Amino acid sequence: MTTTLPELDEIAAAATAAAPLWRTSPAATRAAWIRAVADALDAATDELVEIADRETHLGTTRLRGEVGRTTGQLRLFADVVLEGSYLEATVDDADPSATPPRPELRRVLVGVGPVAVFSASNFPFAFSVCGGDTASAWAAGNPVVVKAHSGHPELSRRTAEIARAALAAAGAPEGSLALIEGREAGNALVQHPAIRAAGFTGSLSGGRALFDLAAGRPDPIPFYGELGSVNPVVVTPGAAAARGDALAQGLVGSFTLGVGQFCTKPGVVFVPRGADAFVDAVATAVPGVSGGPLLTERITDAFPSGIDALADDPAVAVVARGAESAGGAQPIVLRTDAAAVAERPETLLEECFGPVTLLVAYDGADDLHAALRAVPGSLTATLHAEEADDVDDTLALLQERAGRVLFAGWPTGVAVTWSQQHGGPWPATTSLHTSVGASAIRRFLRPVTFQDAPARLLPAELRDENLAAIPHRRNGRLVVSADARAS
Amino acid sequence: MTTTLPELDEIAAAATAAAPLWRTSPAATRAAWIRAVADALDAATDELVEIADRETHLGTTRLRGEVGRTTGQLRLFADVVLEGSYLEATVDDADPSATPPRPELRRVLVGVGPVAVFSASNFPFAFSVCGGDTASAWAAGNPVVVKAHSGHPELSRRTAEIARAALAAAGAPEGSLALIEGREAGNALVQHPAIRAAGFTGSLSGGRALFDLAAGRPDPIPFYGELGSVNPVVVTPGAAAARGDALAQGLVGSFTLGVGQFCTKPGVVFVPRGADAFVDAVATAVPGVSGGPLLTERITDAFPSGIDALADDPAVAVVARGAESAGGAQPIVLRTDAAAVAERPETLLEECFGPVTLLVAYDGADDLHAALRAVPGSLTATLHAEEADDVDDTLALLQERAGRVLFAGWPTGVAVTWSQQHGGPWPATTSLHTSVGASAIRRFLRPVTFQDAPARLLPAELRDENLAAIPHRRNGRLVVSADARAS
Repeated sequence: MTTTLPELDEIAAAATAAAPLWRTSPAATRAAWIRAVADALDAATDELVEIADRETHLGTTRLRGEVGRTTGQLRLFADVVLEGSYLEATVDDADPSATPPRPELRRVLVGVGPVAVFSASNFPFAFSVCGGDTASAWAAGNPVVVKAHSGHPELSRRTAEIARAALAAAGAPEGSLALIEGREAGNALVQHPAIRAAGFTGSLSGGRALFDLAAGRPDPIPFYGELGSVNPVVVTPGAAAARGDALAQGLVGSFTLGVGQFCTKPGVVFVPRGADAFVDAVATAVPGVSGGPLLTERITDAFPSGIDALADDPAVAVVARGAESAGGAQPIVLRTDAAAVAERPETLLEECFGPVTLLVAYDGADDLHAALRAVPGSLTATLHAEEADDVDDTLALLQERAGRVLFAGWPTGVAVTWSQQHGGPWPATTSLHTSVGASAIRRFLRPVTFQDAPARLLPAELRDENLAAIPHRRNGRLVVSADARAS
Repeated sequence: MTTTLPELDEIAAAATAAAPLWRTSPAATRAAWIRAVADALDAATDELVEIADRETHLGTTRLRGEVGRTTGQLRLFADVVLEGSYLEATVDDADPSATPPRPELRRVLVGVGPVAVFSASNFPFAFSVCGGDTASAWAAGNPVVVKAHSGHPELSRRTAEIARAALAAAGAPEGSLALIEGREAGNALVQHPAIRAAGFTGSLSGGRALFDLAAGRPDPIPFYGELGSVNPVVVTPGAAAARGDALAQGLVGSFTLGVGQFCTKPGVVFVPRGADAFVDAVATAVPGVSGGPLLTERITDAFPSGIDALADDPAVAVVARGAESAGGAQPIVLRTDAAAVAERPETLLEECFGPVTLLVAYDGADDLHAALRAVPGSLTATLHAEEADDVDDTLALLQERAGRVLFAGWPTGVAVTWSQQHGGPWPATTSLHTSVGASAIRRFLRPVTFQDAPARLLPAELRDENLAAIPHRRNGRLVVSADARAS
């Protein structure tokens, strides 16, 4: 089912034709289109989960939950459209007395045009055909062309089919959503003149290759990639002493969740040297956890090589292995020390997708901080500390390296809310934006300012009679009217 | 005075050391630092204008005005810091009853780290050492390293000296502002590991080269470049008939302003065929306008070659030339027709820096629209129409191609306000952001979300007791308290 280049041209032409209809669609209409997709996917949950489980082995409970997360995400973005803050509507009235006289200026964000979305293997719903990138690109007022992940082709096709039917029934234009398949078509997609921005979730190597294609275009486009993350965790001596056992249980649950195939999997855990109770508790818990089949052949092949690369380091030892499972990946915990991490970060801090984590023993703050300085940009960083601990310097180092900093729990849960941040310094992401949560919409918008425009030629939202319905700024002052729609 | 690579390393180390101090500076402190620079530059206006006029020939009236614009811009960004919306403070309270239970999340934007600024030749104050890129990078909480433009080295040094003294006196850290010189140092700057983002205003070729270096880093950084723009103008038959003479006067004033060296210079003007009165009025006005010396040797050399490239096209003719001025560029108006533009945009629609504009005759809407589809991304697009004109399709085409759409006046004035947009599709800019106006600050910020953080470890702005002072969102609802600081 590989998409040919002539087929891609047709798909791009349809997206181009749909773009003005999405861009100028009224908020209520656009929200209805997005909600129609959510409703249709909810209604098809049984069928979709069955296909997804066959293709990904992620289990029906997890997959059923993921459908709910995905449709909830679509509905959040419909709410974001209706609430209207995302437009950043801004008006400065004319000031003829200024030097020089100031014209009237009205600014709004508008859809950037057709968006390419490269879906991920590990979230076949939430980061795939109708996942967060697609939802936020639609909410911004753009048609979407999705490159299906080869790990779940049948699910991708069926999801697209259901979404397209729902969009058509709701009155959305042809070209609102298209699916392409094949690596060559994907490379052509990110270079296609019709495409104005791209979203991606996947590996560092694959993402970097597409980033380079996007940046190398005659007209470079923004490429929003989420590429890789080791998600450091720091346990203070106080926390290890006070609740080492609970932390160990939490860690084991988190690094083996989804067979370790979460972008936010805690991949490196800094533990005070001598916190033997914590390490023992991990060693005790792991053998009771089984792994399972990994998502794709590529990940299945890469996992043992990743383990070997770590285990071959002279400063690395095995702490414990999980239960064996036929044909599946076996969880494993390794350990090393902070000096080795600071010295060889390129070996010891490379993301290894699958159920593995590395415990790093540190001797005091200086030793810890030297190692933290070697940690690459991550989606998350977690600090388990007690109230009496002095963690200011540690926190500063973690915050510099991550987009989300946790003080309780484990990073593998990602709530889809207004305040979520799923993105961090390179290589976690390629941009200063999030791919999860309401503000992901900003990635697919561009600003336009209208100077001295007659009211009839302004976008509807910017006309005086409609401004009150949305949060807006007038002459420097942010205004949230009583009749602004609640989210 | 070329900066050596060891010197650059020292400068980068000082900026890195200053970064946490800028990032965590309280709003009032940071605003005071920025205002101190504005005050010091205002106080030094006489001295600075004298140097600037000697180096750029832009004239003391214009340059004096530009100092005022620049210090006003610094003060606007101090206001933006105090107002606080730019933080996008967002809180979602914990919801233990949700499935899965939702943690508390608090999101804020923080400074990205040391910023590189490449200054422009044509605005030696407003787009130079303490120009908009520097002002917005400081406001975002970042130290700045400026690459001086070789067109005004003495002014750059003196401006930096004054700004550094003002910053030091106001208590800002060492490393808040540094100046480097030389192309090699500039190339190294955009590739330096310490630099987290870059702003640039200049030529397409120079900007593209730096963009490629930024994108080619092992850890790519955002490169916000403003590269080139032809700024299309459309005159409808109705407008040409109703006010052709006034439009002609306006055009001539605009394309020759600053000897045609504005990024927003109207470079191509679509005029209905047969609007002879308009063309005649242009032809009559131009000979009365003199040019003057151009900014740099490079621009001086490029101007006649640019004219020749246009004039050599078989479909191009000369309409009028301005007054000769010894050693200066002579204004010139050329004309062609829409069919030629649609066929050879790479020749006829390339930006030519200096006092030249191209009138394009069109026969009806289809002819006009075919040519407009060939117009590359621009900072501005201007539509001169009468109320009775049907301009919907024309406007849609212009809006797709520009970041600011004008319906009166001429694009060469750029008000520095909350609602300004100075940026457009490639090659106008390399990003979906503006380099002028309040929202330019977003370029130099990255989001961080704190999950279940103890209040004492949160950034001050995100603590409950401080949230009321700034516009913020809580549980999806935007809140502007009565005691939020006015801008």
